Amino acid sequence: MTESEFRAMVRVSHEAGHLKHSKRTGWWIAGIKDPESIAEHSWRTAVIGYLLAHAEGADPERTVTICVFHDLQEARTGDIPSVGKSYLAATPAADVARDQVQDLPAAVARGILELAGLAGGRSTAEAACAKDADKLECLLQAREYQRQGHQDVQPWIDSMVSAVRTKTGKAFAKAALEADPGEWWREMATSYGRVLAGLPAAGGS
Amino acid sequence: MTESEFRAMVRVSHEAGHLKHSKRTGWWIAGIKDPESIAEHSWRTAVIGYLLAHAEGADPERTVTICVFHDLQEARTGDIPSVGKSYLAATPAADVARDQVQDLPAAVARGILELAGLAGGRSTAEAACAKDADKLECLLQAREYQRQGHQDVQPWIDSMVSAVRTKTGKAFAKAALEADPGEWWREMATSYGRVLAGLPAAGGS
Amino acid sequence: MTESEFRAMVRVSHEAGHLKHSKRTGWWIAGIKDPESIAEHSWRTAVIGYLLAHAEGADPERTVTICVFHDLQEARTGDIPSVGKSYLAATPAADVARDQVQDLPAAVARGILELAGLAGGRSTAEAACAKDADKLECLLQAREYQRQGHQDVQPWIDSMVSAVRTKTGKAFAKAALEADPGEWWREMATSYGRVLAGLPAAGGS
Amino acid sequence: MTESEFRAMVRVSHEAGHLKHSKRTGWWIAGIKDPESIAEHSWRTAVIGYLLAHAEGADPERTVTICVFHDLQEARTGDIPSVGKSYLAATPAADVARDQVQDLPAAVARGILELAGLAGGRSTAEAACAKDADKLECLLQAREYQRQGHQDVQPWIDSMVSAVRTKTGKAFAKAALEADPGEWWREMATSYGRVLAGLPAAGGS
Amino acid sequence: MTESEFRAMVRVSHEAGHLKHSKRTGWWIAGIKDPESIAEHSWRTAVIGYLLAHAEGADPERTVTICVFHDLQEARTGDIPSVGKSYLAATPAADVARDQVQDLPAAVARGILELAGLAGGRSTAEAACAKDADKLECLLQAREYQRQGHQDVQPWIDSMVSAVRTKTGKAFAKAALEADPGEWWREMATSYGRVLAGLPAAGGS
Amino acid sequence: MTESEFRAMVRVSHEAGHLKHSKRTGWWIAGIKDPESIAEHSWRTAVIGYLLAHAEGADPERTVTICVFHDLQEARTGDIPSVGKSYLAATPAADVARDQVQDLPAAVARGILELAGLAGGRSTAEAACAKDADKLECLLQAREYQRQGHQDVQPWIDSMVSAVRTKTGKAFAKAALEADPGEWWREMATSYGRVLAGLPAAGGS
Repeated sequence: MTESEFRAMVRVSHEAGHLKHSKRTGWWIAGIKDPESIAEHSWRTAVIGYLLAHAEGADPERTVTICVFHDLQEARTGDIPSVGKSYLAATPAADVARDQVQDLPAAVARGILELAGLAGGRSTAEAACAKDADKLECLLQAREYQRQGHQDVQPWIDSMVSAVRTKTGKAFAKAALEADPGEWWREMATSYGRVLAGLPAAGGS
Repeated sequence: MTESEFRAMVRVSHEAGHLKHSKRTGWWIAGIKDPESIAEHSWRTAVIGYLLAHAEGADPERTVTICVFHDLQEARTGDIPSVGKSYLAATPAADVARDQVQDLPAAVARGILELAGLAGGRSTAEAACAKDADKLECLLQAREYQRQGHQDVQPWIDSMVSAVRTKTGKAFAKAALEADPGEWWREMATSYGRVLAGLPAAGGS
Repeated sequence: MTESEFRAMVRVSHEAGHLKHSKRTGWWIAGIKDPESIAEHSWRTAVIGYLLAHAEGADPERTVTICVFHDLQEARTGDIPSVGKSYLAATPAADVARDQVQDLPAAVARGILELAGLAGGRSTAEAACAKDADKLECLLQAREYQRQGHQDVQPWIDSMVSAVRTKTGKAFAKAALEADPGEWWREMATSYGRVLAGLPAAGGS
Repeated sequence: MTESEFRAMVRVSHEAGHLKHSKRTGWWIAGIKDPESIAEHSWRTAVIGYLLAHAEGADPERTVTICVFHDLQEARTGDIPSVGKSYLAATPAADVARDQVQDLPAAVARGILELAGLAGGRSTAEAACAKDADKLECLLQAREYQRQGHQDVQPWIDSMVSAVRTKTGKAFAKAALEADPGEWWREMATSYGRVLAGLPAAGGS
Repeated sequence: MTESEFRAMVRVSHEAGHLKHSKRTGWWIAGIKDPESIAEHSWRTAVIGYLLAHAEGADPERTVTICVFHDLQEARTGDIPSVGKSYLAATPAADVARDQVQDLPAAVARGILELAGLAGGRSTAEAACAKDADKLECLLQAREYQRQGHQDVQPWIDSMVSAVRTKTGKAFAKAALEADPGEWWREMATSYGRVLAGLPAAGGS
Repeated sequence: MTESEFRAMVRVSHEAGHLKHSKRTGWWIAGIKDPESIAEHSWRTAVIGYLLAHAEGADPERTVTICVFHDLQEARTGDIPSVGKSYLAATPAADVARDQVQDLPAAVARGILELAGLAGGRSTAEAACAKDADKLECLLQAREYQRQGHQDVQPWIDSMVSAVRTKTGKAFAKAALEADPGEWWREMATSYGRVLAGLPAAGGS
């Protein structure tokens, strides 16, 4: 690998860094002034993709990798929310990605382009899981924004539920609609109250 | 897969969502008031891990997956910066992860625990790439904070450079130290100036 | 005026409110994590337009009005920064505006569309001043970001200077390049120091 | 126009830039931690003023211009919220403006002072529209904060409704109280859901 | 006092400054993205401690001082929220404080260590008031977050109420549960509405 | 103590909570978009006051208490920065405080009013230390903003140095001008680098 190729790797990594700043701008419309970044969304999408792939019998690590790269082209186009879809024509993601990876070592560039191509559809079990993970991440986020008080996110929830396609994704969405987003910490927070009060923990003797 | 298992998947995904809020608190020490989240860091770590793995001859998708999950336990422990290391003893990451995944389907839980175990060291080529990607992400971020004016991040740069271990990681770090973080957009911004000015693009006839 | 027309006026005003959330996303590329909104940019553009119009012999109030509305269509398309220009094709601003104003009273709709048409070029003295004010606002902002420590905004400064067209705009740009952005408050802050110190104000007896 | 006058124009424009940082601090009292800036408020006030003026038979462009400058003096005094009114005596806005414009070309200075004088009352149809636009902007903002979950903004809504004076302003306020702040994007968001789901748009065949 | 001791005082003060950046991270779990800092919490704790001490017959100034220093060690350990308590073992606060004050003049160091020791329990009336003030500050904050729309803070309220120990603290907690957090400004805001409307103030003739 | 008095204590504590939202607005002028709150400033002022009082032979706990309450009246007046001083006349702090404490138990109210009176000048050794602590806190903050890249804070540094009056305060200011704000964590960060690199700590065998 040449020095020039390492420089290209660093350059692409700095470009990826731009997605740490780039907000998921669709939430602005819903009144969320400081929404999460595309990087944050992409990360949890990968986590969910991993779970879905296991359940769906797809390759989890391939699914995770598709998820990680599924919005990379947005470093150049930005996140285009629903309102913008009618007014903006974006270069296909794979074409944008081609520009982004052009100086990378050939094998890496080929790999990322293949991932970009997969992310565009549901052509493989892994791509289908990644696509659903993308929607489910948004669904969970909408549910979390609701708990913060935001009252305009229901259309996002409805859209995302209706966009899920795999059997596993649908079961996940159903569970998400019934879940309490704070369930994971509720028990820990409750036991903390007992600690503060100097009471024995539940079940303690 | 049972309903209860889907509920557990949703619960873990909401827990992962907590890392979208959780800041990389070490940067507060360096005077960065609103630093990036652990989720953002984890995401770019995965991107860099992909690049390193290709160059190092490791499995890129496995590396990406280790990177995605490498800080999952911080949803429970928080990010412990250098200053805190002397004062806090944290439960081993793999033990925290065991609590986090306990209600997931057995195969998924096993998978995540295996990833957590790998992330703790450099026992495989993939783990070694993930470890270096973790450090290199921090290095690039420090360089970017420098460009924003922050004058106290040099110790982070030095620490990260000295912590990298793979041959590829070292070459990447060297390139990073010489790179201009804004190189990826410089040409696009410059051509924009020509567009604004109504001048032909460079090389145009 | 009908109730339905008042409802449309309220609807358009809420849509305009979206520009209070919408960030000037180009600054993210320059490493500015929390840049100003399109509304903020539009407001100071109007102030500058007023100054230029006086100097250029254009109608100040017409110029101000063009400036106020010059980015209204971005409520639907978002702000497309330089990097995105190569990858996104946007519906012409006047066409977007047509959708935005369709339910307004006819005279108001016609007025806003005329303003949108003017904002697209330099067809009148007022439009030319508004166009330059748009660039000069960005130039001043870049200078202010520099004072905050940001080291990557020079390309914005260069672009904006080269994009200005009126004689007055060029003189303003020249003055801006030589000005200290903090000059307006420097004297007041200095006299405050004397007050704190219990010293007589400069020139006092 | 002299170089010194251009320098003064730049200086005033940087001073105006301070209103991009200056928050509408009254909202802090209502529990809104990161409220909009005075610049953002002033901008939407101008948009609303344009709509009102058309409906009220006032000169729209003059109204817009009054709105743009109506809080300029707050660059020096800050925004004084209701709680502070009992405890602070502010120099009259026109007197503050006199200091702000003193080095501008005479005609510009005169123009801004005239605008400042008008903004203080309802002496002309345009001033009356601008005054009402100021209140209505705050009313719409309060409604938007309610949709974000804030439960303490009703006093702002009541105050603003009761402060509106023109016939048109009253009709606008009535429509605002009945409106759904998200109406403008609801249809676009809904159709997006259909796109995601791969269904034909409503009315399609 | 030596120069070296003054240097140490400055160093400790800069370390304290770190608590202006350090967020009360437990609120992230409750979905509060940008919660208050440890410094802000400590300050209001001191105000509440002053009130409690008067009511409880403790020394108010000593209580205030315990409150001010009660979280100083978190400059090194960070704020460890309920979820983390099961996974992290922290060095005792007094031991951390010993490192923090080691270069201070002996009397100052001794004083701060004594305060740190007191803050750990309820060994004196002042310490008991400070401990309760710490919990009550969190209780009031939770109530304020509720008014901002947050729907997941009830466990914090319950925990804090149950953790209060002094008679005065319990009466304060009871009053807090019944209070409207906005009561202090309600009358001022209402009279402002009358001012805006040009009506005489209540009771005016 | 009556229920009504506890309600008043809660009301005052919520009012104090407003200072957790209220920014030190003077920093906006220096280009600091998101400066610290008055609560944060007050807290570190108290810490510094404690250090100064020890050195100056004043009562440390009384000094701390003066510092904690020294800006309480700003919950009603806001922070008035240097630029505003020429244009705003504020009700004397002690008079504002009288309104704030009017429903508190008489002894508490008397205590707070006495503190407010002291905070206005240098009438006792404790008041003089508190006054200097107020200035020195601002000085340290300015130094910290400089390290974050801000280039317009020197006038704040100069003002604060010149406003300090006690012998101890002057020595502290001198030390502050020579200090590196990051000195307190430098060694810890450096040793962290060695840990990451797997090297023995300095001085280890």
